Amino acid sequence: MGLKQKDRGVYQYIRVMFQDEDEEKEKEKVWLLSLEDVEEILSYKFSDKNLLKEAFTHPSYYYPDDTKESYERLELLGDSVLNLIISKEMFLLYPDSSPGLLTRLRAANVDNEKLARVAFKYRLYPYLRHKAPDMEDQVQAFSNDIQNYPVHSYGLIDTPKFLADIVESIIGAVFIDSNYSLDTVWKVFKRLLEPIIGPKTLRIHPMTELYELCQKNKISINFVDGSKSETYKTFSVVLENNIVIGTSTCASRKEIVKNRAAKAALDHLKATLPSAN
Amino acid sequence: MGLKQKDRGVYQYIRVMFQDEDEEKEKEKVWLLSLEDVEEILSYKFSDKNLLKEAFTHPSYYYPDDTKESYERLELLGDSVLNLIISKEMFLLYPDSSPGLLTRLRAANVDNEKLARVAFKYRLYPYLRHKAPDMEDQVQAFSNDIQNYPVHSYGLIDTPKFLADIVESIIGAVFIDSNYSLDTVWKVFKRLLEPIIGPKTLRIHPMTELYELCQKNKISINFVDGSKSETYKTFSVVLENNIVIGTSTCASRKEIVKNRAAKAALDHLKATLPSAN
Repeated sequence: MGLKQKDRGVYQYIRVMFQDEDEEKEKEKVWLLSLEDVEEILSYKFSDKNLLKEAFTHPSYYYPDDTKESYERLELLGDSVLNLIISKEMFLLYPDSSPGLLTRLRAANVDNEKLARVAFKYRLYPYLRHKAPDMEDQVQAFSNDIQNYPVHSYGLIDTPKFLADIVESIIGAVFIDSNYSLDTVWKVFKRLLEPIIGPKTLRIHPMTELYELCQKNKISINFVDGSKSETYKTFSVVLENNIVIGTSTCASRKEIVKNRAAKAALDHLKATLPSAN
Repeated sequence: MGLKQKDRGVYQYIRVMFQDEDEEKEKEKVWLLSLEDVEEILSYKFSDKNLLKEAFTHPSYYYPDDTKESYERLELLGDSVLNLIISKEMFLLYPDSSPGLLTRLRAANVDNEKLARVAFKYRLYPYLRHKAPDMEDQVQAFSNDIQNYPVHSYGLIDTPKFLADIVESIIGAVFIDSNYSLDTVWKVFKRLLEPIIGPKTLRIHPMTELYELCQKNKISINFVDGSKSETYKTFSVVLENNIVIGTSTCASRKEIVKNRAAKAALDHLKATLPSAN
Protein backbone atom coordinates (compact mmCIF):
# COMPACT_ATOMS: atom_id res chain seq x y z
CA MET A 1 0.00 0.00 0.00
CA GLY A 2 1.53 3.26 -1.17
CA LEU A 3 1.54 6.45 0.87
CA LYS A 4 -0.04 9.55 -0.53
CA GLN A 5 2.36 12.38 -1.31
CA LYS A 6 1.20 14.50 1.63
CA ASP A 7 1.91 11.69 4.05
CA ARG A 8 5.54 11.34 3.05
CA GLY A 9 6.76 13.85 5.66
CA VAL A 10 4.93 12.16 8.49
CA TYR A 11 6.11 8.74 7.32
CA GLN A 12 9.69 10.00 7.23
CA TYR A 13 9.28 11.44 10.72
CA ILE A 14 7.91 8.19 12.06
CA ARG A 15 10.77 6.25 10.43
CA VAL A 16 13.40 8.52 12.05
CA MET A 17 11.58 8.28 15.36
CA PHE A 18 11.65 4.50 15.26
CA GLN A 19 15.27 4.55 14.16
CA ASP A 20 16.04 6.69 17.20
CA GLU A 21 14.09 4.29 19.35
CA ASP A 22 16.04 1.37 17.92
CA GLU A 23 19.23 3.22 18.61
CA GLU A 24 18.12 3.87 22.19
CA LYS A 25 17.32 0.21 22.62
CA GLU A 26 20.71 -0.75 21.25
CA LYS A 27 22.43 1.68 23.61
CA GLU A 28 20.45 0.31 26.54
CA LYS A 29 21.50 -3.23 25.61
CA VAL A 30 25.18 -2.25 25.47
CA TRP A 31 24.86 -0.45 28.81
CA LEU A 32 23.18 -3.45 30.43
CA LEU A 33 25.97 -5.69 29.19
CA SER A 34 28.57 -3.27 30.54
CA LEU A 35 26.99 -3.54 33.98
CA GLU A 36 28.37 -7.07 34.10
CA ASP A 37 31.77 -5.41 34.46
CA VAL A 38 30.44 -3.72 37.57
CA GLU A 39 29.46 -7.09 38.98
CA GLU A 40 33.02 -8.20 38.36
CA ILE A 41 34.48 -5.13 40.08
CA LEU A 42 32.24 -5.83 43.07
CA SER A 43 32.71 -9.62 42.92
CA TYR A 44 28.95 -9.79 43.38
CA LYS A 45 26.25 -11.08 41.02
CA PHE A 46 22.86 -9.41 41.35
CA SER A 47 19.75 -11.61 41.42
CA ASP A 48 17.67 -8.56 40.56
CA LYS A 49 19.45 -6.70 37.75
CA ASN A 50 16.92 -3.86 38.04
CA LEU A 51 18.55 -2.84 41.30
CA LEU A 52 21.89 -2.56 39.55
CA LYS A 53 20.30 -0.47 36.78
CA GLU A 54 18.67 1.84 39.29
CA ALA A 55 21.93 2.23 41.22
CA PHE A 56 23.67 3.47 38.07
CA THR A 57 21.03 5.90 36.87
CA HIS A 58 21.71 9.54 37.70
CA PRO A 59 18.67 11.82 38.18
CA SER A 60 19.76 13.87 35.12
CA TYR A 61 19.31 10.82 32.90
CA TYR A 62 15.59 11.44 32.42
CA TYR A 63 16.02 15.11 31.58
CA PRO A 64 13.86 16.83 30.37
CA ASP A 65 11.31 14.30 31.62
CA ASP A 66 10.47 13.90 35.25
CA THR A 67 12.99 12.16 37.41
CA LYS A 68 12.06 8.55 37.94
CA GLU A 69 13.92 5.56 39.25
CA SER A 70 17.19 7.35 39.70
CA TYR A 71 19.70 6.18 42.26
CA GLU A 72 18.58 8.66 44.90
CA ARG A 73 16.35 6.32 46.90
CA LEU A 74 18.99 3.58 46.93
CA GLU A 75 21.59 6.14 47.89
CA LEU A 76 19.53 7.15 50.92
CA LEU A 77 19.22 3.56 52.05
CA GLY A 78 22.86 2.80 51.29
CA ASP A 79 23.95 5.76 53.38
CA SER A 80 22.27 4.21 56.44
CA VAL A 81 23.68 0.77 55.69
CA LEU A 82 27.21 2.13 55.34
CA ASN A 83 26.89 4.11 58.54
CA LEU A 84 25.93 0.97 60.40
CA ILE A 85 28.54 -1.38 58.98
CA ILE A 86 31.27 1.15 59.73
CA SER A 87 29.91 1.86 63.23
CA LYS A 88 29.81 -1.85 63.95
CA GLU A 89 33.33 -2.39 62.62
CA MET A 90 34.77 0.52 64.64
CA PHE A 91 32.85 -0.60 67.74
CA LEU A 92 34.32 -4.09 67.53
CA LEU A 93 37.84 -3.15 66.36
CA TYR A 94 38.41 -0.52 69.05
CA PRO A 95 36.66 -1.71 72.21
CA ASP A 96 38.53 0.77 74.41
CA SER A 97 38.10 3.86 72.28
CA SER A 98 36.06 6.76 73.58
CA PRO A 99 32.68 7.64 72.05
CA GLY A 100 34.26 10.81 70.66
CA LEU A 101 36.94 8.90 68.80
CA LEU A 102 34.37 6.40 67.50
CA THR A 103 32.30 9.28 66.14
CA ARG A 104 35.30 10.77 64.35
CA LEU A 105 36.37 7.40 62.95
CA ARG A 106 32.89 6.77 61.61
CA ALA A 107 32.70 10.23 60.06
CA ALA A 108 36.07 9.88 58.31
CA ASN A 109 35.16 6.49 56.85
CA VAL A 110 31.75 7.38 55.46
CA ASP A 111 32.28 10.91 54.23
CA ASN A 112 31.91 11.99 50.60
CA GLU A 113 35.62 12.30 49.89
CA LYS A 114 36.32 8.80 51.15
CA LEU A 115 33.50 7.33 49.04
CA ALA A 116 34.36 9.34 45.94
CA ARG A 117 37.85 7.84 46.12
CA VAL A 118 36.29 4.38 45.97
CA ALA A 119 34.20 5.22 42.88
CA PHE A 120 37.28 6.69 41.25
CA LYS A 121 39.80 4.00 42.19
CA TYR A 122 37.60 1.13 41.06
CA ARG A 123 36.36 3.00 38.00
CA LEU A 124 32.70 2.65 38.89
CA TYR A 125 31.69 6.08 37.54
CA PRO A 126 32.02 5.34 33.80
CA TYR A 127 28.98 3.06 34.05
CA LEU A 128 26.71 5.82 35.29
CA ARG A 129 23.84 6.77 32.92
CA HIS A 130 23.45 10.54 33.01
CA LYS A 131 22.89 13.70 31.02
CA ALA A 132 24.84 16.02 33.31
CA PRO A 133 27.20 18.18 31.27
CA ASP A 134 30.45 18.48 33.21
CA MET A 135 30.90 15.21 35.05
CA GLU A 136 34.09 14.23 33.23
CA ASP A 137 35.70 17.56 34.11
CA GLN A 138 34.77 17.16 37.75
CA VAL A 139 36.28 13.68 37.85
CA GLN A 140 39.44 14.95 36.15
CA ALA A 141 39.85 17.74 38.71
CA PHE A 142 39.24 15.29 41.56
CA SER A 143 41.75 12.89 40.09
CA ASN A 144 44.39 15.67 40.05
CA ASP A 145 43.56 16.81 43.57
CA ILE A 146 43.87 13.43 45.25
CA GLN A 147 47.43 12.99 43.95
CA ASN A 148 48.49 15.22 46.82
CA TYR A 149 46.53 13.35 49.49
CA PRO A 150 46.93 9.59 49.23
CA VAL A 151 44.40 8.70 51.96
CA HIS A 152 42.21 11.70 52.79
CA SER A 153 42.54 15.49 52.52
CA TYR A 154 40.24 16.29 55.47
CA GLY A 155 38.43 19.11 53.81
CA LEU A 156 41.07 20.49 51.47
CA ILE A 157 39.72 19.29 48.13
CA ASP A 158 36.42 19.49 46.25
CA THR A 159 34.55 16.21 46.00
CA PRO A 160 32.09 15.58 43.16
CA LYS A 161 29.06 14.41 45.11
CA PHE A 162 27.85 12.01 42.43
CA LEU A 163 31.02 9.92 42.87
CA ALA A 164 30.13 9.34 46.52
CA ASP A 165 26.46 8.85 45.64
CA ILE A 166 27.25 5.94 43.33
CA VAL A 167 28.99 4.03 46.11
CA GLU A 168 26.07 4.59 48.49
CA SER A 169 23.52 3.56 45.87
CA ILE A 170 25.40 0.33 45.10
CA ILE A 171 25.57 -0.42 48.83
CA GLY A 172 21.79 0.08 49.00
CA ALA A 173 21.29 -2.17 45.99
CA VAL A 174 23.47 -4.98 47.37
CA PHE A 175 21.69 -4.69 50.73
CA ILE A 176 18.29 -5.27 49.14
CA ASP A 177 19.50 -7.84 46.64
CA SER A 178 21.15 -9.92 49.40
CA ASN A 179 17.87 -9.94 51.32
CA TYR A 180 19.12 -7.28 53.76
CA SER A 181 22.30 -9.07 54.75
CA LEU A 182 24.76 -6.79 56.50
CA ASP A 183 27.35 -9.56 56.29
CA THR A 184 27.12 -9.69 52.51
CA VAL A 185 27.38 -5.91 52.18
CA TRP A 186 30.44 -5.89 54.42
CA LYS A 187 32.03 -8.77 52.50
CA VAL A 188 31.59 -6.88 49.21
CA PHE A 189 32.59 -3.41 50.40
CA LYS A 190 35.30 -4.03 52.99
CA ARG A 191 37.87 -4.52 50.23
CA LEU A 192 36.66 -1.51 48.23
CA LEU A 193 36.69 0.77 51.27
CA GLU A 194 40.30 -0.07 52.14
CA PRO A 195 42.28 1.57 53.61
CA ILE A 196 39.76 1.89 56.43
CA ILE A 197 40.82 4.89 58.54
CA GLY A 198 41.72 3.86 62.10
CA PRO A 199 42.92 5.77 65.18
CA LYS A 200 46.49 5.79 63.83
CA THR A 201 45.67 7.16 60.39
CA LEU A 202 42.91 9.52 61.55
CA ARG A 203 43.78 13.19 61.10
CA ILE A 204 41.77 16.18 62.17
CA HIS A 205 40.52 18.98 59.96
CA PRO A 206 43.01 21.86 59.65
CA MET A 207 40.41 24.26 61.02
CA THR A 208 40.04 22.24 64.23
CA GLU A 209 43.79 21.77 64.58
CA LEU A 210 44.39 25.49 64.06
CA TYR A 211 41.89 26.49 66.75
CA GLU A 212 43.39 23.98 69.17
CA LEU A 213 46.95 25.19 68.53
CA CYS A 214 45.91 28.83 68.93
CA GLN A 215 44.06 28.13 72.16
CA LYS A 216 47.11 26.33 73.57
CA ASN A 217 49.38 29.23 72.65
CA LYS A 218 46.88 31.97 73.57
CA ILE A 219 46.81 33.33 70.02
CA SER A 220 43.66 35.07 68.84
CA ILE A 221 42.75 34.64 65.16
CA ASN A 222 40.01 35.65 62.77
CA PHE A 223 38.91 34.46 59.35
CA VAL A 224 38.49 37.34 56.92
CA ASP A 225 36.45 36.96 53.75
CA GLY A 226 38.25 38.72 50.92
CA SER A 227 36.29 37.16 48.06
CA LYS A 228 36.05 39.34 44.97
CA SER A 229 33.78 37.13 42.85
CA GLU A 230 31.19 34.41 43.24
CA THR A 231 33.49 31.85 41.62
CA TYR A 232 36.87 32.59 43.14
CA LYS A 233 36.64 32.90 46.89
CA THR A 234 39.40 34.19 49.15
CA PHE A 235 39.78 33.67 52.89
CA SER A 236 42.61 34.77 55.14
CA VAL A 237 43.58 33.95 58.69
CA VAL A 238 44.63 37.11 60.49
CA LEU A 239 46.09 37.81 63.92
CA GLU A 240 44.78 40.56 66.24
CA ASN A 241 47.31 43.03 64.81
CA ASN A 242 45.87 42.35 61.32
CA ILE A 243 48.90 40.38 60.16
CA VAL A 244 47.88 37.67 57.70
CA ILE A 245 49.33 34.26 58.55
CA GLY A 246 47.54 32.17 55.94
CA THR A 247 45.41 32.78 52.88
CA SER A 248 43.70 30.83 50.13
CA THR A 249 41.96 31.72 46.89
CA CYS A 250 40.20 29.10 44.82
CA ALA A 251 37.02 28.19 42.99
CA SER A 252 35.77 25.83 45.67
CA ARG A 253 33.09 25.76 48.30
CA LYS A 254 33.56 28.36 51.04
CA GLU A 255 34.26 25.65 53.61
CA ILE A 256 37.14 24.26 51.55
CA VAL A 257 38.69 27.67 50.91
CA LYS A 258 38.59 28.39 54.66
CA ASN A 259 40.11 25.00 55.43
CA ARG A 260 42.94 25.69 53.01
CA ALA A 261 43.62 29.07 54.57
CA ALA A 262 43.65 27.32 57.95
CA LYS A 263 46.17 24.81 56.61
CA ALA A 264 48.44 27.63 55.40
CA ALA A 265 48.16 29.36 58.79
CA LEU A 266 48.94 26.09 60.56
CA ASP A 267 52.04 25.54 58.46
CA HIS A 268 53.16 29.08 59.23
CA LEU A 269 52.58 28.74 62.97
CA LYS A 270 54.28 25.36 63.16
CA ALA A 271 57.33 26.83 61.46
CA THR A 272 57.50 29.88 63.71
CA LEU A 273 56.20 28.84 67.13
CA PRO A 274 58.92 27.14 69.14
CA SER A 275 56.35 25.06 71.08
CA ALA A 276 54.28 23.93 68.12
CA ASN A 277 56.17 20.77 67.33
CA MET B 1 43.95 -9.48 118.77
CA GLY B 2 43.25 -6.03 120.19
CA LEU B 3 43.97 -2.79 118.42
CA LYS B 4 46.27 -0.25 119.95
CA GLN B 5 44.64 3.01 120.95
CA LYS B 6 46.21 4.99 118.10
CA ASP B 7 44.87 2.55 115.49
CA ARG B 8 41.26 2.96 116.59
CA GLY B 9 40.55 5.82 114.19
CA VAL B 10 41.89 3.91 111.21
CA TYR B 11 39.92 0.82 112.18
CA GLN B 12 36.76 2.85 112.49
CA TYR B 13 37.46 4.38 109.07
CA ILE B 14 38.00 0.98 107.47
CA ARG B 15 34.80 -0.36 109.05
CA VAL B 16 32.74 2.54 107.63
CA MET B 17 34.41 2.10 104.25
CA PHE B 18 33.44 -1.56 104.09
CA GLN B 19 29.97 -0.74 105.31
CA ASP B 20 29.67 1.74 102.41
CA GLU B 21 30.97 -0.88 100.05
CA ASP B 22 28.39 -3.37 101.32
CA GLU B 23 25.72 -0.78 100.84
CA GLU B 24 26.94 -0.13 97.30
CA LYS B 25 26.86 -3.85 96.57
CA GLU B 26 23.35 -4.08 97.93
CA LYS B 27 22.23 -1.14 95.79
CA GLU B 28 23.85 -2.71 92.72
CA LYS B 29 21.99 -5.97 93.41
CA VAL B 30 18.65 -4.17 93.67
CA TRP B 31 19.40 -2.26 90.47
CA LEU B 32 20.33 -5.43 88.60
CA LEU B 33 17.08 -7.04 89.70
CA SER B 34 15.15 -3.98 88.56
CA LEU B 35 16.63 -4.35 85.09
CA GLU B 36 14.47 -7.43 84.72
CA ASP B 37 11.56 -5.01 84.53
CA VAL B 38 13.27 -3.44 81.55
CA GLU B 39 13.43 -6.82 79.86
CA GLU B 40 9.72 -7.11 80.44
CA ILE B 41 9.02 -3.67 78.98
CA LEU B 42 11.06 -4.63 75.92
CA SER B 43 9.72 -8.20 75.77
CA TYR B 44 13.33 -9.20 75.25
CA LYS B 45 15.64 -11.28 77.47
CA PHE B 46 19.33 -10.42 77.25
CA SER B 47 21.83 -13.28 76.97
CA ASP B 48 24.57 -10.88 78.05
CA LYS B 49 23.26 -8.88 81.01
CA ASN B 50 26.37 -6.70 80.93
CA LEU B 51 25.04 -5.07 77.78
CA LEU B 52 21.85 -4.17 79.57
CA LYS B 53 23.86 -2.73 82.49
CA GLU B 54 26.01 -0.67 80.14
CA ALA B 55 22.95 0.63 78.29
CA PHE B 56 21.51 1.99 81.54
CA THR B 57 24.65 3.62 82.91
CA HIS B 58 24.85 7.37 82.40
CA PRO B 59 28.34 8.92 82.05
CA SER B 60 27.73 10.91 85.26
CA TYR B 61 27.44 7.69 87.24
CA TYR B 62 31.20 7.38 87.72
CA TYR B 63 31.60 10.97 88.85
CA PRO B 64 34.09 12.02 90.19
CA ASP B 65 35.99 9.07 88.74
CA ASP B 66 36.76 8.77 85.06
CA THR B 67 33.93 7.84 82.79
CA LYS B 68 34.01 4.17 81.95
CA GLU B 69 31.52 1.83 80.42
CA SER B 70 28.75 4.36 80.15
CA TYR B 71 26.04 4.01 77.53
CA GLU B 72 27.74 6.36 75.08
CA ARG B 73 29.36 3.73 72.88
CA LEU B 74 26.17 1.69 72.66
CA GLU B 75 24.24 4.88 71.94
CA LEU B 76 26.50 5.59 68.97
CA LEU B 77 25.98 2.12 67.56
CA GLY B 78 22.25 2.18 68.30
CA ASP B 79 21.91 5.48 66.46
CA SER B 80 23.21 3.82 63.27
CA VAL B 81 21.02 0.76 63.76
CA LEU B 82 17.91 2.88 64.26
CA ASN B 83 18.71 4.97 61.22
CA LEU B 84 18.93 1.86 59.10
CA ILE B 85 15.84 0.07 60.36
CA ILE B 86 13.77 3.23 59.83
CA SER B 87 15.30 3.87 56.39
CA LYS B 88 14.53 0.31 55.37
CA GLU B 89 10.97 0.52 56.70
CA MET B 90 10.28 3.82 54.93
CA PHE B 91 11.90 2.53 51.74
CA LEU B 92 9.65 -0.52 51.68
CA LEU B 93 6.45 1.13 52.95
CA TYR B 94 6.54 4.03 50.49
CA PRO B 95 8.00 2.71 47.24
CA ASP B 96 6.78 5.71 45.26
CA SER B 97 7.88 8.45 47.62
CA SER B 98 10.57 10.88 46.54
CA PRO B 99 14.04 10.81 48.09
CA GLY B 100 13.24 14.15 49.74
CA LEU B 101 10.15 12.77 51.46
CA LEU B 102 12.06 9.65 52.54
CA THR B 103 14.73 11.84 54.11
CA ARG B 104 12.14 13.85 56.04
CA LEU B 105 10.31 10.72 57.18
CA ARG B 106 13.53 9.19 58.43
CA ALA B 107 14.53 12.38 60.24
CA ALA B 108 11.16 12.69 61.99
CA ASN B 109 11.22 9.08 63.18
CA VAL B 110 14.73 9.03 64.60
CA ASP B 111 15.05 12.48 66.12
CA ASN B 112 15.63 13.15 69.81
CA GLU B 113 12.09 14.27 70.58
CA LYS B 114 10.58 11.15 69.04
CA LEU B 115 12.96 8.89 71.01
CA ALA B 116 12.57 10.80 74.27
CA ARG B 117 8.83 10.19 74.00
CA VAL B 118 9.54 6.45 73.86
CA ALA B 119 11.74 6.53 76.98
CA PHE B 120 9.07 8.56 78.76
CA LYS B 121 6.00 6.62 77.65
CA TYR B 122 7.46 3.21 78.53
CA ARG B 123 9.08 4.51 81.74
CA LEU B 124 12.56 3.37 80.77
CA TYR B 125 14.34 6.35 82.36
CA PRO B 126 13.81 5.42 86.05
CA TYR B 127 16.22 2.51 85.59
CA LEU B 128 19.10 4.74 84.55
CA ARG B 129 22.09 4.81 86.94
CA HIS B 130 23.34 8.38 87.14
CA LYS B 131 24.61 11.16 89.38
CA ALA B 132 23.28 14.03 87.30
CA PRO B 133 21.47 16.52 89.51
CA ASP B 134 18.41 17.74 87.61
CA MET B 135 17.22 14.80 85.55
CA GLU B 136 13.89 14.47 87.32
CA ASP B 137 13.09 18.14 86.73
CA GLN B 138 13.93 17.81 83.05
CA VAL B 139 11.66 14.80 82.70
CA GLN B 140 8.87 16.65 84.52
CA ALA B 141 9.16 19.64 82.19
CA PHE B 142 9.20 17.36 79.15
CA SER B 143 6.18 15.50 80.46
CA ASN B 144 4.26 18.80 80.73
CA ASP B 145 5.37 19.99 77.31
CA ILE B 146 4.30 16.93 75.37
CA GLN B 147 0.73 17.24 76.66
CA ASN B 148 0.26 19.88 73.98
CA TYR B 149 1.73 17.82 71.17
CA PRO B 150 0.45 14.25 71.13
CA VAL B 151 2.73 12.99 68.33
CA HIS B 152 5.55 15.46 67.72
CA SER B 153 6.13 19.18 68.28
CA TYR B 154 8.59 19.65 65.39
CA GLY B 155 11.02 21.81 67.25
CA LEU B 156 8.74 23.60 69.70
CA ILE B 157 9.74 21.86 72.92
CA ASP B 158 12.97 21.14 74.79
CA THR B 159 14.00 17.50 74.75
CA PRO B 160 16.21 16.09 77.50
CA LYS B 161 18.90 14.40 75.45
CA PHE B 162 19.49 11.57 77.91
CA LEU B 163 15.93 10.33 77.35
CA ALA B 164 16.69 9.85 73.67
CA ASP B 165 20.14 8.44 74.45
CA ILE B 166 18.67 5.63 76.54
CA VAL B 167 16.55 4.40 73.63
CA GLU B 168 19.53 4.45 71.27
CA SER B 169 21.76 2.65 73.77
CA ILE B 170 19.17 -0.10 74.30
CA ILE B 171 18.85 -0.49 70.54
CA GLY B 172 22.64 -0.87 70.35
CA ALA B 173 22.58 -3.40 73.17
CA VAL B 174 19.82 -5.51 71.60
CA PHE B 175 21.63 -5.38 68.25
CA ILE B 176 24.80 -6.87 69.75
CA ASP B 177 22.99 -9.28 72.05
CA SER B 178 20.93 -10.69 69.15
CA ASN B 179 24.12 -11.33 67.20
CA TYR B 180 23.54 -8.27 65.00
CA SER B 181 20.05 -9.17 63.90
CA LEU B 182 18.20 -6.24 62.36
CA ASP B 183 15.05 -8.33 62.38
CA THR B 184 15.21 -8.82 66.13
CA VAL B 185 15.83 -5.12 66.76
CA TRP B 186 12.88 -4.21 64.57
CA LYS B 187 10.65 -6.76 66.27
CA VAL B 188 11.50 -5.31 69.70
CA PHE B 189 11.34 -1.62 68.80
CA LYS B 190 8.58 -1.36 66.21
CA ARG B 191 5.95 -1.47 68.94
CA LEU B 192 7.82 1.00 71.15
CA LEU B 193 8.34 3.46 68.31
CA GLU B 194 4.64 3.57 67.42
CA PRO B 195 3.11 5.73 66.08
CA ILE B 196 5.67 5.66 63.27
CA ILE B 197 5.37 8.97 61.42
CA GLY B 198 4.28 8.47 57.79
CA PRO B 199 3.59 10.85 54.91
CA LYS B 200 0.11 11.60 56.27
CA THR B 201 1.20 12.46 59.80
CA LEU B 202 4.42 14.20 58.80
CA ARG B 203 4.48 17.91 59.55
CA ILE B 204 7.18 20.38 58.70
CA HIS B 205 9.04 22.64 61.12
CA PRO B 206 7.29 25.99 61.68
CA MET B 207 10.41 27.79 60.48
CA THR B 208 10.34 25.99 57.11
CA GLU B 209 6.58 26.45 56.75
CA LEU B 210 6.86 30.16 57.57
CA TYR B 211 9.55 30.75 54.95
CA GLU B 212 7.54 28.85 52.34
CA LEU B 213 4.36 30.79 53.10
CA CYS B 214 6.22 34.12 52.96
CA GLN B 215 7.88 33.27 49.69
CA LYS B 216 4.52 32.32 48.16
CA ASN B 217 2.97 35.58 49.33
CA LYS B 218 6.03 37.74 48.62
CA ILE B 219 6.39 38.75 52.25
CA SER B 220 9.83 39.63 53.54
CA ILE B 221 10.58 38.73 57.16
CA ASN B 222 13.46 38.88 59.61
CA PHE B 223 14.22 37.22 62.91
CA VAL B 224 15.26 39.72 65.56
CA ASP B 225 17.14 38.63 68.68
CA GLY B 226 15.76 40.55 71.65
CA SER B 227 17.29 38.35 74.36
CA LYS B 228 18.00 40.17 77.61
CA SER B 229 19.66 37.33 79.52
CA GLU B 230 21.54 34.12 78.90
CA THR B 231 18.71 32.03 80.33
CA TYR B 232 15.61 33.67 78.92
CA LYS B 233 15.92 34.22 75.22
CA THR B 234 13.58 36.28 73.06
CA PHE B 235 13.11 36.15 69.32
CA SER B 236 10.64 38.04 67.16
CA VAL B 237 9.56 37.74 63.57
CA VAL B 238 9.27 41.19 62.03
CA LEU B 239 8.05 42.47 58.68
CA GLU B 240 9.97 44.99 56.59
CA ASN B 241 8.07 47.87 58.22
CA ASN B 242 9.27 46.60 61.62
CA ILE B 243 5.87 45.31 62.65
CA VAL B 244 6.21 42.26 64.88
CA ILE B 245 4.02 39.36 63.78
CA GLY B 246 5.27 36.72 66.20
CA THR B 247 7.44 36.59 69.29
CA SER B 248 8.62 34.09 71.87
CA THR B 249 10.49 34.31 75.16
CA CYS B 250 11.57 31.21 77.01
CA ALA B 251 14.42 29.44 78.74
CA SER B 252 15.10 27.07 75.87
CA ARG B 253 17.72 26.58 73.21
CA LYS B 254 17.92 29.41 70.68
CA GLU B 255 16.61 27.13 67.93
CA ILE B 256 13.47 26.31 69.91
CA VAL B 257 12.77 29.94 70.81
CA LYS B 258 13.07 30.89 67.12
CA ASN B 259 10.81 28.02 66.11
CA ARG B 260 8.19 29.17 68.62
CA ALA B 261 8.34 32.71 67.31
CA ALA B 262 7.94 31.29 63.80
CA LYS B 263 4.89 29.33 64.96
CA ALA B 264 3.33 32.50 66.40
CA ALA B 265 4.04 34.37 63.16
CA LEU B 266 2.54 31.52 61.14
CA ASP B 267 -0.63 31.53 63.21
CA HIS B 268 -0.88 35.27 62.72
CA LEU B 269 -0.38 35.09 58.95
CA LYS B 270 -2.79 32.20 58.53
CA ALA B 271 -5.45 34.18 60.34
CA THR B 272 -4.90 37.35 58.33
CA LEU B 273 -3.84 36.27 54.83
CA PRO B 274 -6.84 35.36 52.71
CA SER B 275 -4.83 32.86 50.62
CA ALA B 276 -3.08 31.10 53.46
CA ASN B 277 -5.61 28.36 54.04
